[in-house]
Amino acid sequence: MSTGFFGDTKPIRYEGPNSANPLAYRHYDPDEVVMGKRLEDHLRFAIAYWHSFAWPGGDPFGGQTFQRPWFGDTMELARLKADVAFEMFTTLGTPYYCFHDADVRPEGDTLRESISRLDEIADVFARKQEETGVKLLWGTANLFSHRRYMAGAATNPDPDVFAYAAATVKSCIDVTKRLGGENYVLWGGREGYETLLNTDMKREREQAGRFLSMVVEYAKKIGFKGTILIEPKPQEPTKHQYDYDVATVYGFLKDFGLEKEVKVNIEQGHAILAGHTFEHELALASALGIFGSIDMNRNDYQSGWDTDQFPNNVPEMALAYYEVLRAGGFTTGGTNFDAKLRRQSLDPEDLLIAHIGGIDCCARGLKAAAKMIEDKALSGPLDERYAGWESVEAQAMLSGKRSLEEIADRALAEGIEPQPRSGRQEYLENVVNRYV
Amino acid sequence: MSTGFFGDTKPIRYEGPNSANPLAYRHYDPDEVVMGKRLEDHLRFAIAYWHSFAWPGGDPFGGQTFQRPWFGDTMELARLKADVAFEMFTTLGTPYYCFHDADVRPEGDTLRESISRLDEIADVFARKQEETGVKLLWGTANLFSHRRYMAGAATNPDPDVFAYAAATVKSCIDVTKRLGGENYVLWGGREGYETLLNTDMKREREQAGRFLSMVVEYAKKIGFKGTILIEPKPQEPTKHQYDYDVATVYGFLKDFGLEKEVKVNIEQGHAILAGHTFEHELALASALGIFGSIDMNRNDYQSGWDTDQFPNNVPEMALAYYEVLRAGGFTTGGTNFDAKLRRQSLDPEDLLIAHIGGIDCCARGLKAAAKMIEDKALSGPLDERYAGWESVEAQAMLSGKRSLEEIADRALAEGIEPQPRSGRQEYLENVVNRYV
Amino acid sequence: MSTGFFGDTKPIRYEGPNSANPLAYRHYDPDEVVMGKRLEDHLRFAIAYWHSFAWPGGDPFGGQTFQRPWFGDTMELARLKADVAFEMFTTLGTPYYCFHDADVRPEGDTLRESISRLDEIADVFARKQEETGVKLLWGTANLFSHRRYMAGAATNPDPDVFAYAAATVKSCIDVTKRLGGENYVLWGGREGYETLLNTDMKREREQAGRFLSMVVEYAKKIGFKGTILIEPKPQEPTKHQYDYDVATVYGFLKDFGLEKEVKVNIEQGHAILAGHTFEHELALASALGIFGSIDMNRNDYQSGWDTDQFPNNVPEMALAYYEVLRAGGFTTGGTNFDAKLRRQSLDPEDLLIAHIGGIDCCARGLKAAAKMIEDKALSGPLDERYAGWESVEAQAMLSGKRSLEEIADRALAEGIEPQPRSGRQEYLENVVNRYV
Amino acid sequence: MSTGFFGDTKPIRYEGPNSANPLAYRHYDPDEVVMGKRLEDHLRFAIAYWHSFAWPGGDPFGGQTFQRPWFGDTMELARLKADVAFEMFTTLGTPYYCFHDADVRPEGDTLRESISRLDEIADVFARKQEETGVKLLWGTANLFSHRRYMAGAATNPDPDVFAYAAATVKSCIDVTKRLGGENYVLWGGREGYETLLNTDMKREREQAGRFLSMVVEYAKKIGFKGTILIEPKPQEPTKHQYDYDVATVYGFLKDFGLEKEVKVNIEQGHAILAGHTFEHELALASALGIFGSIDMNRNDYQSGWDTDQFPNNVPEMALAYYEVLRAGGFTTGGTNFDAKLRRQSLDPEDLLIAHIGGIDCCARGLKAAAKMIEDKALSGPLDERYAGWESVEAQAMLSGKRSLEEIADRALAEGIEPQPRSGRQEYLENVVNRYV
Repeated sequence: MSTGFFGDTKPIRYEGPNSANPLAYRHYDPDEVVMGKRLEDHLRFAIAYWHSFAWPGGDPFGGQTFQRPWFGDTMELARLKADVAFEMFTTLGTPYYCFHDADVRPEGDTLRESISRLDEIADVFARKQEETGVKLLWGTANLFSHRRYMAGAATNPDPDVFAYAAATVKSCIDVTKRLGGENYVLWGGREGYETLLNTDMKREREQAGRFLSMVVEYAKKIGFKGTILIEPKPQEPTKHQYDYDVATVYGFLKDFGLEKEVKVNIEQGHAILAGHTFEHELALASALGIFGSIDMNRNDYQSGWDTDQFPNNVPEMALAYYEVLRAGGFTTGGTNFDAKLRRQSLDPEDLLIAHIGGIDCCARGLKAAAKMIEDKALSGPLDERYAGWESVEAQAMLSGKRSLEEIADRALAEGIEPQPRSGRQEYLENVVNRYV
Repeated sequence: MSTGFFGDTKPIRYEGPNSANPLAYRHYDPDEVVMGKRLEDHLRFAIAYWHSFAWPGGDPFGGQTFQRPWFGDTMELARLKADVAFEMFTTLGTPYYCFHDADVRPEGDTLRESISRLDEIADVFARKQEETGVKLLWGTANLFSHRRYMAGAATNPDPDVFAYAAATVKSCIDVTKRLGGENYVLWGGREGYETLLNTDMKREREQAGRFLSMVVEYAKKIGFKGTILIEPKPQEPTKHQYDYDVATVYGFLKDFGLEKEVKVNIEQGHAILAGHTFEHELALASALGIFGSIDMNRNDYQSGWDTDQFPNNVPEMALAYYEVLRAGGFTTGGTNFDAKLRRQSLDPEDLLIAHIGGIDCCARGLKAAAKMIEDKALSGPLDERYAGWESVEAQAMLSGKRSLEEIADRALAEGIEPQPRSGRQEYLENVVNRYV
Repeated sequence: MSTGFFGDTKPIRYEGPNSANPLAYRHYDPDEVVMGKRLEDHLRFAIAYWHSFAWPGGDPFGGQTFQRPWFGDTMELARLKADVAFEMFTTLGTPYYCFHDADVRPEGDTLRESISRLDEIADVFARKQEETGVKLLWGTANLFSHRRYMAGAATNPDPDVFAYAAATVKSCIDVTKRLGGENYVLWGGREGYETLLNTDMKREREQAGRFLSMVVEYAKKIGFKGTILIEPKPQEPTKHQYDYDVATVYGFLKDFGLEKEVKVNIEQGHAILAGHTFEHELALASALGIFGSIDMNRNDYQSGWDTDQFPNNVPEMALAYYEVLRAGGFTTGGTNFDAKLRRQSLDPEDLLIAHIGGIDCCARGLKAAAKMIEDKALSGPLDERYAGWESVEAQAMLSGKRSLEEIADRALAEGIEPQPRSGRQEYLENVVNRYV
Repeated sequence: MSTGFFGDTKPIRYEGPNSANPLAYRHYDPDEVVMGKRLEDHLRFAIAYWHSFAWPGGDPFGGQTFQRPWFGDTMELARLKADVAFEMFTTLGTPYYCFHDADVRPEGDTLRESISRLDEIADVFARKQEETGVKLLWGTANLFSHRRYMAGAATNPDPDVFAYAAATVKSCIDVTKRLGGENYVLWGGREGYETLLNTDMKREREQAGRFLSMVVEYAKKIGFKGTILIEPKPQEPTKHQYDYDVATVYGFLKDFGLEKEVKVNIEQGHAILAGHTFEHELALASALGIFGSIDMNRNDYQSGWDTDQFPNNVPEMALAYYEVLRAGGFTTGGTNFDAKLRRQSLDPEDLLIAHIGGIDCCARGLKAAAKMIEDKALSGPLDERYAGWESVEAQAMLSGKRSLEEIADRALAEGIEPQPRSGRQEYLENVVNRYV
């Protein structure tokens, strides 16, 4: 029984690149096989509960623009919201969804009530998952919106907040496990500072390390099979967030001995805000062995805040999925649309159209990336460029068999005078443009 | 015997805050004792050879503006340059200097000749150090200006460049040791990439790790007592540099087991370009145990490139030295003016005036910071803010004696409902303004 | 009769630079005479109603943190808010305030009701102004928060919104005039676009021009003696706002023949977001004859959104007030604190302390600027630098008495070969540092 | 007779989208007819002399990487450079080129000699144009590289520099006219300031206005039929440049009554550096009636300096050419590749490949834009969005027939309550993605 929110919209189907139907996929055919795998299994799309169902359309200078029948603070409305959400998942045919506790249930008067309401909604979700086949990509706790977290959750100067956050995360992992979630995510939106003047960064870092260690231990203890993921972001809401970017998270994990236990959920917009390209963060995580999942969206390069737009630039997405595929593709991870409608996009249809556009862009990007890999379009020239390192002497240097002195002596003895070779950047850019 | 470059300028003296003499210190009295130490010993000023003596005043849209009698490619001019440099050091009364090989001698036709010329100039420096008492804060190798390094030094796709760089660094460490240098710096200006399309980041990272390990081993082997320092910078000249910021360098050091061997030389301008405040990078390095030295300058917050201006904002410098003092002050490190004249500042006097202004700002900043520390102006409120963590139960959580479950159980049992307290940022900002 | 919100806080007094009382002025003595005028008359401080009394402490990732007894949607609470507001004005001793209609009264069910409620509150304000001597620096209409304005007010694709905005602005000008407001401000927070794809920029620019022209005509007609001010901002909330910066507003005014009728209200944070320094925008407005008033605050240089912090960097403020004084000082304009507490600054006292700190910084900045002017510290070197232009021939070139050909002929005939002279930037920066 | 620089490369031909030949066009067929015009006549490609033939590959941290047989300071080498340049033009089949005086001849010892050398090279160019059919899109004077211009050309504090610049510009206009140049460009790379402390902005603005007026008068006097173009850029090399962006230039032109005489040459990278999209600047110039020509390149969104890369993002270029076509297409203007090789792209072939890639991207972009226009893909929804403004009452408001009061009265009388409608941004983005 439909809520009617999307009118009489039929499930979205693949109609091919020539379709002009705004409610059809032009590039995403879930069953298309690419590099030996179905597109659906490559891309593992998830819908983010928060943007599509909980966000009212406000911004720092204006209030709610969306008028949704489920807006409000009762459990009944929370159930209506779930009905519409699962309707959207099945209409779009996306296999996964993601949520924060705060997205799916009204805050209780007490911690106990908040947790109990989450459990109640989890029952609803379990049933709906059963009915629809939609699965949970990841769950997470919102430790940043409520005023109690204004100075951090794990990194709060008040140990009671740490404890409150711990209890909350426990409840969210419990629910994630129960719902078969394939990952559990921590985004530390308030784990940072507004000003160093009132902050003991070293102490807060210790708190964060302890918190994460406990989470890892607990997940193991209860037999959670999913991946624990940290989602880096440099700033906003705070002036500085400790999980700045992939490289920073890696150093943090190494410090607390967690680099084998925890991976990263990389968001395009967060990469941009940290001064990196999305593909940089993906390639780095892969090189460091901590690549986990992605939050797909797009940040306006010229707006200094998190714009969370739907992706629409295929050439950029091809480079992103190229790194995903080079990293071996997703295992427990997937492509979560952490993207929201522009606040002027008021219509229910806009919700569908935005996701359709994003999904099609991802599919185009991934297919282009796969073709580049199959053709060795980029890897061929790359191997050639580094071929000199395959020599015996070069390998000896790299493997630690040569000391600085020995290398220096040889360099002088041989009178080496290295001759630069073209980096061929424009050639390679043109090659990519053959695929997108 | 003077070169006459600075005319009949007398050594710069401290004349007190009311002096209007542009060639006097108004705040820097080297012998003033602050927190039990002379200002000179706190600040440990160094002059950067490259900006003041080697840079011709060009920018991407214009050529040389400075006309210096020592510009040219002969060893004779290199000696004249050294004469003027040491005249400036003694005129300013700054105890240290820093240099790259390429700043002090013309490039030779071969690697051997380049090294031999460096040795020759080192003899000149040794004699001048002896005569003047000026000391070497650090030496370094320029592995970024010559075209052979256009695609990196240690991270070059060509192993011959790696070898060439190794030989060069060896020669620079040798000279640094010979001159009693208190640190040796590596700035990886080309250790990064222009485009991921032609880059194997994982491989290059390995190369960088190997290179640094060899440097550390060699320094130990020859009994170099100084500190090995990495200087982080996010980008420019390359699109992305591997030593992005302090957090990134830390992860890299941890990965190669070098976090006890290598520290960081933090530059104000590089911190800014990485999206951080200077004090953030200082506080983080201190928290991570890798704080080494600073490159003092200032970057225009609104120019996206490295502007390397002389510092002039005292409130900002007070916050920077506050972190330096909290970190225990400099040991082998110091305050190196990695700052250059604006290219319109043509006169010899401008060189002196720029340094005098910078030195006075540093002195004001450090004295304000020292006073804040003595008054516990910031640390008092800080301790109070985190006081809750001193409780037995909080310490138990932090030290790992409590599991997530135990904490959750207690939180529920006690029905904790943390009450936010004011972060008092404006109050603390006003407090700082009492000191600057 | 006090509301008790500020406890038993006494009016804030000047206690001199050595005071450590956080509730005293250390630099702002309203009666201190500088350049022949009282500080109060120079600085003309105003408090912004919106930040201090209407903002709940939310940000894009978190909700309300402040708990104020007047929060709510009734007229009774609006009157309580006014009581507290005027208590704060008198406690701080600031002579002016500013407001939007939406700050001071709850939105009505109809346009008519909204206007009528504004009128009702205006009666309250009128009485309070009478009682306290506090005056209205400017009034303005909030044409950006309500969802009806999501696609612009004057520049909306729907002419009914244009009409609604026109009626609203009329009511706000009426009230501003009635309360003796010395200016009327228009900030076009939604006058811009989210995407060019759905925007007819030329048409919207015409709409904006027409709207402003009507406002000017109406203000004249009703005998409003104040100044009409446009407040530039480049973006946020929208992707692009038409009143981008001072230069852009000037071109717009020229186009519609309004450059004599309308001036600008320049905000520090908006200047920064547009890629300019505050002093640049002030100097440019002055050069173009459209300098009006300032919104004083500070934007984090490294946060790409509007942070609206209280100012705290005295050297920067000295340069800003230097331009204000060079422009002849304020006439109808003043220094409005368009600054808000950090959302963690929960206490009533924080509101006072933040303003006290900002006021003291402004006073220090203005006094430093005045001294530089009296000493001709900067203007002396400036006149010298341009002295060549005082020659007869140079004036002939500048005044249009020489053609390109004539100048070229003379240049060739005289064989001129201009010799660069030092721009002395570091010297001038040191000079400023003598004053701050 | 070939110089041999490009080996035995044959003229680049169109081979269609399936070609994998890096030395062929895949999308640019000059004779393809789009919207009734040949692609060559739409796009009017020009090659920039400076990047491809004069730039040595240096950056702020490194020197020359390119080794070109024509590098050096003699007229003979200048002629060789011209030979290679015209070989490249004919090999690529691009119809136009552009140059600065400084690109094409060595600086003379005197102004007279510099001008005479320019004349001599102009003879060479005239002959080559005759032989090859290649035409001059625009000429310009380099008033920013030589140290004499370090503090500006027209806006220099020294009137002799103003005169020197005037003579230089005269010579460049003369040559541009002689060579049939279709435009003359002024880019004020040093017309700005490094610091306000030594700058009289109002005075310098007057100087700039006078200079431009003289240029316009002179061009008319000698019967130059081309367009005078200003090229906006916000900063770099200077801290602030007066021709910041299109809106700023418009205000400047209005102020000096030149808005009918002068148009703008808009560069992608400069738009980005000013905080705008390229399409914004194009649409604005068109709305203001000052659209002239474009400098095509691409700026890294995350590098804060002018990267001048070859364009490679087709979706972005489609939006740019959409605005060009909506503006009626080029008249005297064209698409000048103001783009340079990455400094690692050492090979002659890289020069060709980079241009081929850029040309193909432009062709794809323009063809997509043309199709969107023919289909009314964007203009249809746009007209619909603003349809309300076609009503009689709306037109009355817009045309000035209604006063603020009248509109307010009507709004109240009718009790209007505007209802927001979806802005459909995601829908429109998806539509664009059907075309690119």
